[in-house]
Amino acid sequence: MSNRKLRGAMIGGGYNSFIGPVHRMAGTLDGLAEFVGGVFSADPQRSREFGKTLFLDPQRVHGSVEELIRHEAALPEDQRIDFVTICTPNDSHYHAVCASLEAGFHVICDKPVTRTLAEAQDLVERVEKSDRFFGLTHNYTGYPMVREAKHLVGQGALGTIHKVVVEYAQGWLAPLLSNTDTAANPWRMDPARVGAACTMGDIGTHGENLLRFVTGLETEALCADLRACIPSNPLDDDGSILLRFKGGAHGVLIASQVSTGEENRINLRVYGSKAGLFWSQENPNYLELRDLDGTATVLSKGGPRLSPVATGAGRLPAGHPDGFIEAFANIYRDCFRGIAGEPVDVPGIADGLAGMQFIETVVASGRSEQKWTPWVSSR
Amino acid sequence: MSNRKLRGAMIGGGYNSFIGPVHRMAGTLDGLAEFVGGVFSADPQRSREFGKTLFLDPQRVHGSVEELIRHEAALPEDQRIDFVTICTPNDSHYHAVCASLEAGFHVICDKPVTRTLAEAQDLVERVEKSDRFFGLTHNYTGYPMVREAKHLVGQGALGTIHKVVVEYAQGWLAPLLSNTDTAANPWRMDPARVGAACTMGDIGTHGENLLRFVTGLETEALCADLRACIPSNPLDDDGSILLRFKGGAHGVLIASQVSTGEENRINLRVYGSKAGLFWSQENPNYLELRDLDGTATVLSKGGPRLSPVATGAGRLPAGHPDGFIEAFANIYRDCFRGIAGEPVDVPGIADGLAGMQFIETVVASGRSEQKWTPWVSSR
Amino acid sequence: MSNRKLRGAMIGGGYNSFIGPVHRMAGTLDGLAEFVGGVFSADPQRSREFGKTLFLDPQRVHGSVEELIRHEAALPEDQRIDFVTICTPNDSHYHAVCASLEAGFHVICDKPVTRTLAEAQDLVERVEKSDRFFGLTHNYTGYPMVREAKHLVGQGALGTIHKVVVEYAQGWLAPLLSNTDTAANPWRMDPARVGAACTMGDIGTHGENLLRFVTGLETEALCADLRACIPSNPLDDDGSILLRFKGGAHGVLIASQVSTGEENRINLRVYGSKAGLFWSQENPNYLELRDLDGTATVLSKGGPRLSPVATGAGRLPAGHPDGFIEAFANIYRDCFRGIAGEPVDVPGIADGLAGMQFIETVVASGRSEQKWTPWVSSR
Amino acid sequence: MSNRKLRGAMIGGGYNSFIGPVHRMAGTLDGLAEFVGGVFSADPQRSREFGKTLFLDPQRVHGSVEELIRHEAALPEDQRIDFVTICTPNDSHYHAVCASLEAGFHVICDKPVTRTLAEAQDLVERVEKSDRFFGLTHNYTGYPMVREAKHLVGQGALGTIHKVVVEYAQGWLAPLLSNTDTAANPWRMDPARVGAACTMGDIGTHGENLLRFVTGLETEALCADLRACIPSNPLDDDGSILLRFKGGAHGVLIASQVSTGEENRINLRVYGSKAGLFWSQENPNYLELRDLDGTATVLSKGGPRLSPVATGAGRLPAGHPDGFIEAFANIYRDCFRGIAGEPVDVPGIADGLAGMQFIETVVASGRSEQKWTPWVSSR
Repeated sequence: MSNRKLRGAMIGGGYNSFIGPVHRMAGTLDGLAEFVGGVFSADPQRSREFGKTLFLDPQRVHGSVEELIRHEAALPEDQRIDFVTICTPNDSHYHAVCASLEAGFHVICDKPVTRTLAEAQDLVERVEKSDRFFGLTHNYTGYPMVREAKHLVGQGALGTIHKVVVEYAQGWLAPLLSNTDTAANPWRMDPARVGAACTMGDIGTHGENLLRFVTGLETEALCADLRACIPSNPLDDDGSILLRFKGGAHGVLIASQVSTGEENRINLRVYGSKAGLFWSQENPNYLELRDLDGTATVLSKGGPRLSPVATGAGRLPAGHPDGFIEAFANIYRDCFRGIAGEPVDVPGIADGLAGMQFIETVVASGRSEQKWTPWVSSR
Repeated sequence: MSNRKLRGAMIGGGYNSFIGPVHRMAGTLDGLAEFVGGVFSADPQRSREFGKTLFLDPQRVHGSVEELIRHEAALPEDQRIDFVTICTPNDSHYHAVCASLEAGFHVICDKPVTRTLAEAQDLVERVEKSDRFFGLTHNYTGYPMVREAKHLVGQGALGTIHKVVVEYAQGWLAPLLSNTDTAANPWRMDPARVGAACTMGDIGTHGENLLRFVTGLETEALCADLRACIPSNPLDDDGSILLRFKGGAHGVLIASQVSTGEENRINLRVYGSKAGLFWSQENPNYLELRDLDGTATVLSKGGPRLSPVATGAGRLPAGHPDGFIEAFANIYRDCFRGIAGEPVDVPGIADGLAGMQFIETVVASGRSEQKWTPWVSSR
Repeated sequence: MSNRKLRGAMIGGGYNSFIGPVHRMAGTLDGLAEFVGGVFSADPQRSREFGKTLFLDPQRVHGSVEELIRHEAALPEDQRIDFVTICTPNDSHYHAVCASLEAGFHVICDKPVTRTLAEAQDLVERVEKSDRFFGLTHNYTGYPMVREAKHLVGQGALGTIHKVVVEYAQGWLAPLLSNTDTAANPWRMDPARVGAACTMGDIGTHGENLLRFVTGLETEALCADLRACIPSNPLDDDGSILLRFKGGAHGVLIASQVSTGEENRINLRVYGSKAGLFWSQENPNYLELRDLDGTATVLSKGGPRLSPVATGAGRLPAGHPDGFIEAFANIYRDCFRGIAGEPVDVPGIADGLAGMQFIETVVASGRSEQKWTPWVSSR
Repeated sequence: MSNRKLRGAMIGGGYNSFIGPVHRMAGTLDGLAEFVGGVFSADPQRSREFGKTLFLDPQRVHGSVEELIRHEAALPEDQRIDFVTICTPNDSHYHAVCASLEAGFHVICDKPVTRTLAEAQDLVERVEKSDRFFGLTHNYTGYPMVREAKHLVGQGALGTIHKVVVEYAQGWLAPLLSNTDTAANPWRMDPARVGAACTMGDIGTHGENLLRFVTGLETEALCADLRACIPSNPLDDDGSILLRFKGGAHGVLIASQVSTGEENRINLRVYGSKAGLFWSQENPNYLELRDLDGTATVLSKGGPRLSPVATGAGRLPAGHPDGFIEAFANIYRDCFRGIAGEPVDVPGIADGLAGMQFIETVVASGRSEQKWTPWVSSR
């Protein structure tokens, strides 16, 4: 880890952003970094005004990525930022990542990594060519008990996995179920901003990433039932997907933002030849293992039986709930370790590419009459 | 309701039967009927021996359906049985139902109704032609809170339904995951006994029936990923199905008996334009309603706000758990009302036919390369 | 077990009774007994009318205990009842038990066993002198997982117990919280019917019995805060009790019928030097064990790791919920075994006496300025 | 709120501290303040060494409170600290608070506020005489749903409260249940460090504060069963308390650190004439309201129906769990508002005094033969 606080700048995350404050809290929770500048609006005035609410030096707050990069690159090394956090809508990720890497800054980027698969493919090369760290905030992989789940799978505690079920159900778009006025659409329904998918890009990719993180399984082919329940939505808001993994396991992934009344229910179930495993994001500090005879063992975050990887991802003893922000902060802490050159297990550009392949495959399958659509590969 | 206890005979349900005792407890729980005879084994000696454990008159215990029917039909009306309960493996249902109806006995039959779709189609005509009552023990529809769910959907409390998710996960076959010896297979894996499907016939049909009972939705087409995870299994033990309903709603049905560690987890989620609804069989006395803003209302069995239909299906005040047997007994009580000529809302021969169509469609889809297989209709 | 169905008569349990139907369902669930007569009202006409709804022979339905006993005693042995079930209000238990025992009938009696401690003391002698079986329906001890809890404590799985917490919270009297009209009082508030306590007699005794059944601990002294929150109530409706057990463990027992919104929440927590144990009546098919490091193991009714005593008390596999009636039926089944001369672990007259001592001690403590009131002993 | 980041110094919270990192994360989560100095050990060398891990300027890290205060007081106003956070063991609180207030620094202090009641009484006067802000980190009052509970009680949603039950069960001391070696005692069992009580001071005061915060009820008299289950413990590790509140409500408070297997289970139940209310710290983002007929409404943190006070205390939308640190950070944020002169509802010196009175009363009651010990008042 670095022997000083790292310095970051934030692209996006201004007024009315949900995820901006999360990045700020997560990035600074452990006192390992501080945000010293950013681009919070394309309007420099508005950007600086917002920067004031964060007590930032107005000199380091800008109206464009170019300005930010130029200004920071010109600063002496002991003042210059180390990394850039990108949390704008998808369509501006690619450009911001490219510019940041070129200027020699490490990058922490929100998911999905880009608007298009081609952009993601290109970024893979750019990241590989650079010697900069690239982290992708698939934050659910930051929960201690998700990491324990991965550890247990890796240890063989489940035996051979044959089935995975992941559900990601939200209901926040359900009030639009009879909306026909496209003007009322949130930006997540705008293909120009988000790309080929709405819900599958926003939360479906989290589901895919979560199951891959925990199980290591790679999708071979899938069968998607994708649709818009909201009349004004040109993209998807509800989808159910059958999955076939390499090696023979099968699975189901459900992602929906019109699951009326649901908040942020992400449930993961993994079934193996020796045991089953269950985790739920809305009560994230527990992990249930069920053996072949049905006896359940419930492991708690902070408990003494956990692996070092899960223990290290918790901040408080058992019974003191860690939440969403702490999980997010684990991603950041790992990125900071990665920036310092330590080996870390945190989503990166390969996960970003996989997410875009997932979207591409799901959308293709959604339009296909064939049952199975092979996973879109690239490179 | 009848002004005397009804008399029943039981075909099946002898030594080592799980469901036999359930039928006996459920059928007699309310003191409305008694079982006076039966066929508990093809070996008359063994059948009578078992009958003794039930304190039955050995004269009324037989080794074949024919014998039972002949003997009972010859008794004076005030001694003769009123109904026959059939809880043998699927392959003997058809014959037993035919014989019972022909002799003028009402029939209460376990699901799935027959081994083949053709048999079910034939039974539809036979039941219609007879004036006898035919009830099918899709017992999960007997739970008070399932009935409340149906009532709420019917009242429009959910608005227009656009998505349904039903999961039926068991793990009792998981210990066979590496079994290759067909001799160790339970009878539920024997096509000669069960027909075209193992898990989809045994529990998939419960899932389909449950969602149809609650929502009234009829499947238009489906896409099944069906497979045997157990090497020795010539049929299915795990399946995931995408559903398209008439009227535009979509759904997912997951049924598996290799969901390691699961006991009998049946979860139903219904999403509508106004609210979402959740029910779980393993804690069946509660029903959760979530409105558009996520606020949850939890209704309890026995609570004063329930509809008469749910109130009538409970036997105890709130907080005093009704269980599986009580739900099963609700099916029986309704059948007894049906026998007495009262109108009842209990699964019958139409549900039996739908179950067989479901199996047929699922199996066809499981083999198809096409995404959507239309629901197999008949007649 | 008997080689024929036992015959019982029921005293109490007529129109508007909650517990009457429970006794009937529980007593007959396993097909081991039938109710053939009873006293359902002091008005013989009304009693017989009610008996008709149970399809009983009107000859065996009476308006008084004396009549019932006389009539049954006069019948030939192969028709005569074997046992009497008593489920009237407390004040008539004593008389009915005496008469039944004297006539040679076994007795199954609702709790609390009598209206006064003196009556209970007298019954102890009568039961001991008779050779008849006496069972007391402290039904919560019939739950399979309560029996497993007792088994685990007995096996030493918890080590030495130092603390017990039992809560029994109901809210059904809360709507009377501002009631001042004694005419509106339910009979449970009438000292002439119930004796010295309302809530402590009705449900406090269940709590005390449950903790004693599971832990074997005997109260040495207690400190009760007893009161009526309902203005019209001359007895108690809410109480909290500190307990000191022989051997050094301490505990807390909370019993209330004005716990607004509560249904029938009975929670038991037992803490020992090796593990803690948790059970909740409203979801009764699970038992949670927590070891010193906080890891929880959840055992399910019907699961393969249970002791024979818990396995034998379940009727269905894991995941198929047994409910209140099944637990009650376990008490009956054990009583039938006791009647047949088999050794059984089911609450009896000693528990009845303890319950009355508990009430006496609690009421005395409620009035005392001293902190600790020693357990009222007798004989 | 201030127009710049506030500057704080931390007294305590060095190596091996559990609560130190919590204060640091909570105090900086919202970017409203930074810790710039502190006293992390009485050994100046060791203190500075620890300060380095926080990237602090070694000049501002000291080995004593005096040094810290002297140094900071000498700095120009635009560099000087604004507030001091005190998170040492109880015995050094008093001195540190006095010194900080005298030097004109605001104070944020861990609970219990002092080691003795007399110290607390003295602090009341000192805080009142100063114009500095004093906040006490009874952090459980920072949870959004606890604040919603208080709001609902204040709005009359529960009617008149008649009963409160609060349980605070931990098991982390249970491994010492047979320990007799006082050398192995943690500092929380040392009267010289903690004062008159161990568990009642550490967590009992949280329970008392929580119930008072939510209900506004003040204890009039109490009856405590207090004891050490651990042989080496000269203070208490387990206690159960009956409570009588001014105005007529009663309650129960259970606090234990030998509740084997428990993690940090704080449950609050409040019963009123209109509704009951339930909250559990281990799943803190939900609040259950049950009306007179038992129907439960579950409110979620972040949900749209909450009061502004609860909404303002959440950082993320519903379904995105806020945890312990976020609740703690709410206390800090409110303290920062208080420092800026805004009116806030956050525990202060009056709560500190009440906590010490609670300890005093509980310990006195624990030794008394009388049932009720009146609440120790002062001043």
